Amino acid sequence: MTKALLAALLVAAAAPALSQQAPAPPPVPVPPQIERLRDAALSDDYAWDIVEGLTTEVGPRLAGTEAEARARDWSVRKLRALGFANVRVEPFDMPVWVRGEEKAWITAPFPQPIVVSALGNSGATPPQGIEAELVGFDTIDQLIAAPDAAVRGKIVFVSHAMPRTQDGSGYGVFGRARREGPSIASRKGALAIVVRSIGTDYHRNPHTGVMSFAEGVTPIPAGALPLPDAEQVQRILKRGQPVRMRLVMTPRQIGTRQSGNVIAEVPGRDPNAPMLLVSGHLDSWDLGTGAIDDASGVAIAAASAKRIMDAGRPLRTIRIVWFGAEEPGLFGARAYRAAHGKDPYYAIAESDFGADRIWKVDSRLGKDREAEAKMLQRALNPLGIVPGALDEAEGSDISVLLADGIPGVGLSQDGTHYFDLHHTPDDTLDKVDPEALRQNVAAWTTMLAVLSGGIEPHPNRRKRR
Amino acid sequence: MTKALLAALLVAAAAPALSQQAPAPPPVPVPPQIERLRDAALSDDYAWDIVEGLTTEVGPRLAGTEAEARARDWSVRKLRALGFANVRVEPFDMPVWVRGEEKAWITAPFPQPIVVSALGNSGATPPQGIEAELVGFDTIDQLIAAPDAAVRGKIVFVSHAMPRTQDGSGYGVFGRARREGPSIASRKGALAIVVRSIGTDYHRNPHTGVMSFAEGVTPIPAGALPLPDAEQVQRILKRGQPVRMRLVMTPRQIGTRQSGNVIAEVPGRDPNAPMLLVSGHLDSWDLGTGAIDDASGVAIAAASAKRIMDAGRPLRTIRIVWFGAEEPGLFGARAYRAAHGKDPYYAIAESDFGADRIWKVDSRLGKDREAEAKMLQRALNPLGIVPGALDEAEGSDISVLLADGIPGVGLSQDGTHYFDLHHTPDDTLDKVDPEALRQNVAAWTTMLAVLSGGIEPHPNRRKRR
Repeated sequence: MTKALLAALLVAAAAPALSQQAPAPPPVPVPPQIERLRDAALSDDYAWDIVEGLTTEVGPRLAGTEAEARARDWSVRKLRALGFANVRVEPFDMPVWVRGEEKAWITAPFPQPIVVSALGNSGATPPQGIEAELVGFDTIDQLIAAPDAAVRGKIVFVSHAMPRTQDGSGYGVFGRARREGPSIASRKGALAIVVRSIGTDYHRNPHTGVMSFAEGVTPIPAGALPLPDAEQVQRILKRGQPVRMRLVMTPRQIGTRQSGNVIAEVPGRDPNAPMLLVSGHLDSWDLGTGAIDDASGVAIAAASAKRIMDAGRPLRTIRIVWFGAEEPGLFGARAYRAAHGKDPYYAIAESDFGADRIWKVDSRLGKDREAEAKMLQRALNPLGIVPGALDEAEGSDISVLLADGIPGVGLSQDGTHYFDLHHTPDDTLDKVDPEALRQNVAAWTTMLAVLSGGIEPHPNRRKRR
Repeated sequence: MTKALLAALLVAAAAPALSQQAPAPPPVPVPPQIERLRDAALSDDYAWDIVEGLTTEVGPRLAGTEAEARARDWSVRKLRALGFANVRVEPFDMPVWVRGEEKAWITAPFPQPIVVSALGNSGATPPQGIEAELVGFDTIDQLIAAPDAAVRGKIVFVSHAMPRTQDGSGYGVFGRARREGPSIASRKGALAIVVRSIGTDYHRNPHTGVMSFAEGVTPIPAGALPLPDAEQVQRILKRGQPVRMRLVMTPRQIGTRQSGNVIAEVPGRDPNAPMLLVSGHLDSWDLGTGAIDDASGVAIAAASAKRIMDAGRPLRTIRIVWFGAEEPGLFGARAYRAAHGKDPYYAIAESDFGADRIWKVDSRLGKDREAEAKMLQRALNPLGIVPGALDEAEGSDISVLLADGIPGVGLSQDGTHYFDLHHTPDDTLDKVDPEALRQNVAAWTTMLAVLSGGIEPHPNRRKRR
């Protein structure tokens, strides 16, 4: 038995004694309307239709490119066809980086090709590439501790392995190799850096992702190796002979381009009631078709709002935001905050952790709304969802609004397999399990129903049979 | 219950009645020496050492290239270091095809990149590529039935899906799209052909493999799409609008080059006794490091021979052959047959179906050696190996010798996951399970021990403790 489990059981056993002063009132039952909406959503097809359509008819949609612009056009058509109100694009400008050629070889002592992809904002080699000694570090801290002389004029390799977790909590600390490594290596005079992909799968697909060179630091080529290649390089380094790598990597910063947020609404009965915001991001990395990151997210957000709209009119307006340019650094989120940060929100939420089942619900609705938060937990429980924290919520784009203190809900997807696909060519439609997607829509529909202020059935629509 | 299972049970139930005439003699027990060798091989490290070394220190080794030559040098050093006798390379010439650039895009109606790799012997596009309408066929027979006018000037796509099987039996019939499709498409005037990879995994890694244009047929570019891409193209075609593809594929035939077979021996006590031949192939496709195809095969063959050699002197010579140039079309096998087809063989065997566990033993030793074949089945049974046919044996390179009527043994590896990796970039060391590899070595060691004619322990070596 784990200590945590033991502690939980002890607390449970002690609970009756502790609460002897006043018996807790029985919990308010979940209204049948909410249960019906939740259970009906388990047959949802709206979300699959959006994921299939966006990934097939647009495909990859790198922020700031014409592909992302086509995705916005597609989205406006789709959201209008679904019957949402106030469908629009809110454009903004952003700096755009695009991938070029990317090839790598070990040239000595055992010549062979190695798979590599550039990290977002990577610098470039000359077209003919560079060749230099490769110096390996087991962790980012080892690189930090290394004297400049050990790195200067060389290509740096950081091999730190991120473990598999359900909640994705390894991404923060192990992702440092990708996010901080390039600046550290450049400051020490390295010619380039390659890191073990921040991922958990053993396929020859690198995990890209954004990095930014710190102020004043010269951009150098920065790439990610798939796990099989990273471990191959480690084995070669362990032989103890000097290792040389050739690297061709020619991405470019192409200047300022337009991106945009796509917004749609389900108008509430009370235009003055603070609204609900549900979201995901429309852009994807260029290597895959962004099926799990984040076509599924925008689909889940819109499908759940659509299911509420089909059922009747909620008291509160539900606003759907499909953010642009999340991947290169929350450009859409910041533009949205500048335009709408002061709008009144009852709660905000984002789906951006794949398409696997929701396993936990966190929320941060405030002390005075604890009964509502607990109702939400109870309503989600039949979907196999664990009650989580009452003082937490998260989301990538919405983090800038949560930081302003706006109430939020976090419906946590199971991330056990997320980093097998995240930011790789393998992020494609076949990785989305339609049943898991439906469970997500059911959870989001439930959340909207609980927080909607009540849904008034359409008066002019008869129930069929 | 399946019909096959029911039939098997009925036969088993009927057996006592059928054999009432004469009770079968009790089977000859498996000699303890063989059981000891078998069980000790379950701790084998020789095979892993070879697979790890060859894939790390050489990497990909396309037939006829300098990489395959480096692999031969590596092999001679390794086989000598292991103490084998008569270690040598037997060179031969062969035509060599090498990969160039390979890129593809759907250009209409939904522009997006598609992953592709050229099939071995594919023709080339001009450097700037070609662009044409894409015409899809669900099966190779549909392509055959299509009028030339439906194909002429277009790019052909065949989407037939190979099912997953344990014995790999789908490869023959479903592989027709790869092997025959290019010639059929070229005859009908197609500009190029792309096929759904002959594979079972959903990663963005195409499955290459050899094809040959029929006599007099103009070579056209011929490529394989990974399953996610093939299904994406199918979805796009199903939208019903004309679909256009751009294809850049620039492989080359570079003329005649040298390859070679690497041969080593465990000399038998009786130089006149027909020998045992164990084999695999040294070359690999260029996309991966050929860990399962076929570094594992050469490793299993050599490791089992080494274990016999460590135990003592077999009556029969054991010859190890690491064939060159299997992938482009059995060039090493044919050169070997020309030089050694008339040598006396007691049995031949090849490991070339991955690195998963042996699940079945077939053999074709002849009617007069049925007792020996059944002893082999009994000796392998504790390893979880099913007794198979007594009139069958197979192997890719050794097929040319089996066709001459030479006796053979087929130790069948479980192929359930083989076509997830076969001929892809994903064929790398991390896919080899050391425990499954050891079970292979145990099975092969057992086979050699049963057929060796008896192993005489080394007289001058004392047992330690």
